[in-house]
Amino acid sequence: MDVIDIIATKRDGAELSPAQIDWVLDAYNRGVVADEQMAALAMAIVWRGMSRAEVGRWTAAMLSSGDRLDFTDLDRPTTDKHSTGGVGDKITLPLTPTVAACGGAVPQLSGRGLGHTGGTLDKFESIPGWRADLSPERMRRVLTEVGGVVCAAGSGLAPADRKLYALRDVTGTVESIPLIASSIMSKKLAEGTRALVLDVKVGSGAFLPDVESARALARTMVDIGTDGGVTTVALLTAMDTPLGLQVGNALEVAEAVEVLDGGGPSDVVDLTVRLAREMLAAAGLAAAKDPAEALRDGSAMDVWRSMVAAQGGDPDAPLPEAPERSQVLAERSGVVTRVDARAVGAAAWRLGAGRARKEDPVAHSAGVTLHAKPGDTVRQGQPLLTLHAESPELIPHAATALDQAVEIDGPTEPLPLVIDRLD
Amino acid sequence: MDVIDIIATKRDGAELSPAQIDWVLDAYNRGVVADEQMAALAMAIVWRGMSRAEVGRWTAAMLSSGDRLDFTDLDRPTTDKHSTGGVGDKITLPLTPTVAACGGAVPQLSGRGLGHTGGTLDKFESIPGWRADLSPERMRRVLTEVGGVVCAAGSGLAPADRKLYALRDVTGTVESIPLIASSIMSKKLAEGTRALVLDVKVGSGAFLPDVESARALARTMVDIGTDGGVTTVALLTAMDTPLGLQVGNALEVAEAVEVLDGGGPSDVVDLTVRLAREMLAAAGLAAAKDPAEALRDGSAMDVWRSMVAAQGGDPDAPLPEAPERSQVLAERSGVVTRVDARAVGAAAWRLGAGRARKEDPVAHSAGVTLHAKPGDTVRQGQPLLTLHAESPELIPHAATALDQAVEIDGPTEPLPLVIDRLD
Repeated sequence: MDVIDIIATKRDGAELSPAQIDWVLDAYNRGVVADEQMAALAMAIVWRGMSRAEVGRWTAAMLSSGDRLDFTDLDRPTTDKHSTGGVGDKITLPLTPTVAACGGAVPQLSGRGLGHTGGTLDKFESIPGWRADLSPERMRRVLTEVGGVVCAAGSGLAPADRKLYALRDVTGTVESIPLIASSIMSKKLAEGTRALVLDVKVGSGAFLPDVESARALARTMVDIGTDGGVTTVALLTAMDTPLGLQVGNALEVAEAVEVLDGGGPSDVVDLTVRLAREMLAAAGLAAAKDPAEALRDGSAMDVWRSMVAAQGGDPDAPLPEAPERSQVLAERSGVVTRVDARAVGAAAWRLGAGRARKEDPVAHSAGVTLHAKPGDTVRQGQPLLTLHAESPELIPHAATALDQAVEIDGPTEPLPLVIDRLD
Repeated sequence: MDVIDIIATKRDGAELSPAQIDWVLDAYNRGVVADEQMAALAMAIVWRGMSRAEVGRWTAAMLSSGDRLDFTDLDRPTTDKHSTGGVGDKITLPLTPTVAACGGAVPQLSGRGLGHTGGTLDKFESIPGWRADLSPERMRRVLTEVGGVVCAAGSGLAPADRKLYALRDVTGTVESIPLIASSIMSKKLAEGTRALVLDVKVGSGAFLPDVESARALARTMVDIGTDGGVTTVALLTAMDTPLGLQVGNALEVAEAVEVLDGGGPSDVVDLTVRLAREMLAAAGLAAAKDPAEALRDGSAMDVWRSMVAAQGGDPDAPLPEAPERSQVLAERSGVVTRVDARAVGAAAWRLGAGRARKEDPVAHSAGVTLHAKPGDTVRQGQPLLTLHAESPELIPHAATALDQAVEIDGPTEPLPLVIDRLD
């Protein structure tokens, strides 16, 4: 095998053979193929794309670069969810215990990521005592006993993806649907789930703002999962407005607890139920208990408390609260027609809820609270948003991000919460 | 400036600004931009191309990464030629002294390259005693006194091009007209010539086999030269058949001397005269002595002898001859309709006339002699080709490259020697 031939094959628009894909990823992982050669290949893939067969093989090759967890001996079927990420997207928090309460086993391996807020792990870490780092044995025990576990993905899962992702990040080659899809799916397949529901976000606060790109990404991931033997379904869901009313790590935990307590904003509840039903159906548990019932009867909350406690957290401990708060008031009366997810995300990030570099800490108490969502009527001078920060000097810069975020009596074409479904 | 923004700009099909081009090449040359980032950018350029303004600026930025020679104080105008390379292309050897004999000054800075045979320097080095490495002072003196000098380009000329070329070579990013054109032109502009004639080869033995690609390359190089203040002309010339009858380093020197002696194959003579006239015209010497006359009256030969002697060579020393020879005979009688340049080049390379790696030596005596060219009538059993090698085991493998090289009584559509002219 010659790496220049492989680069030239893709550059000239031809299909890579399975043997070429296996070789180039293994050689890259071993350092035989240099970073500059993989960067050129990645840009050729951004240019030319990959066929279904190619992207499936590419994912399998990354998967086989590391360990793959195996939960087939569990007494209940595994099922998981992955979201492409959005502002206020705390759905994993109520969803995992809800699905577990209905009979599924949810092995959520998460990263920290570079988002508007922290990732799922950062959100959980705002609960005093909770820790993400579990040994494989402990993870398996929590999953068996509680039905759900959210922990840090070990470095042994898909190491080729880890190396390639770091390279793409510095070479302008992130923006490729097959590369995004194979990166996500190699990690999800490595965690050993047998069923997977993908929540692909669409709108201003999503990684892919337009529905066509989101649908193409969803289609590619569903194909990879299906071809890899995992029952895979994707929902395209709205991310033009933040999900729920809270954006920030501890703020989102509090909102998740409200949902588990039978309350909470309707969009968070609806999406949790909808995704839970898909996860259960994909795992062959369609006839099991309904997720809406598990939220109503307290069984999802019971699992939540066990899950948190099993990882050292105190479910009754007060969550951190930000010492500094500032409000954005309505400049006029009328009907809210837009709360821009991207602007709210940017403000939360500036307040310290997210991070700029992987090594940075996040401020658990920082974030933004929404007091009105599209469709709500507001009066002039009424609070629209509250900004939460650990120190006052962060607020002015964050506030400027919100200048045009809330529109009153503007034109309106809101996205439906669930835009499409692919399987 | 952010290199990821620059890569993304080109990836998304937009034009790079002059400031972006200057910054990225300077930063790459200083090691601030990493190889993997430049590799991704190079692949994006293969994909998206560059506008005339971009490629001109790119060339200027590579040029300004190093020294630029200045011969404006010479008492005659400088003029040079560059060929994109072909099989049997020894034209620089008779051309340089011919132009010098007609009043031009020819500062030929050459590389060694990885061709079917060695580059111009390797050909000259088959002359006993001749050396390519001249100090800048010595180079200037030879150019002033003799009117022509052929020597190795110092590492101080366009170092960014040197670094980028090595990167492109291992990342599948050689095949880009703007990158090829800017690489050639940055070196030619650095050598300080005021007029330049480009010989862009077309056909099986050329780097770019089809006339459309060759014309696009010629157009791009002419634009770069013109925009860079150098009078630049390009000829598209035939490379479906080897030039002349000799392919190999010493073999080509011998043929060049025949031409300088008033004889030699008509295609070599014709192309030498045609290119010489272009070089003289571009330098404002159209009214000077005619090159055909300089070949006839011995004045070109006089310059040749002085040029060779000025660099330590003995123009009267016998050239090296290969101890091993083998002939390819005509299998039938008829009219030769094709002698495939690519096949003859491959055979010469296998006989040792070229090199696989920059560090390798070349066999000066190795190569292929043609005994018939398209249009010639041959009898069955008559020699068509002679293979020359330093050791007998090289011959069988080289001979297989020539299996289908000579066609007798086949269809024929020979290219004219000069296909097109661009200025």
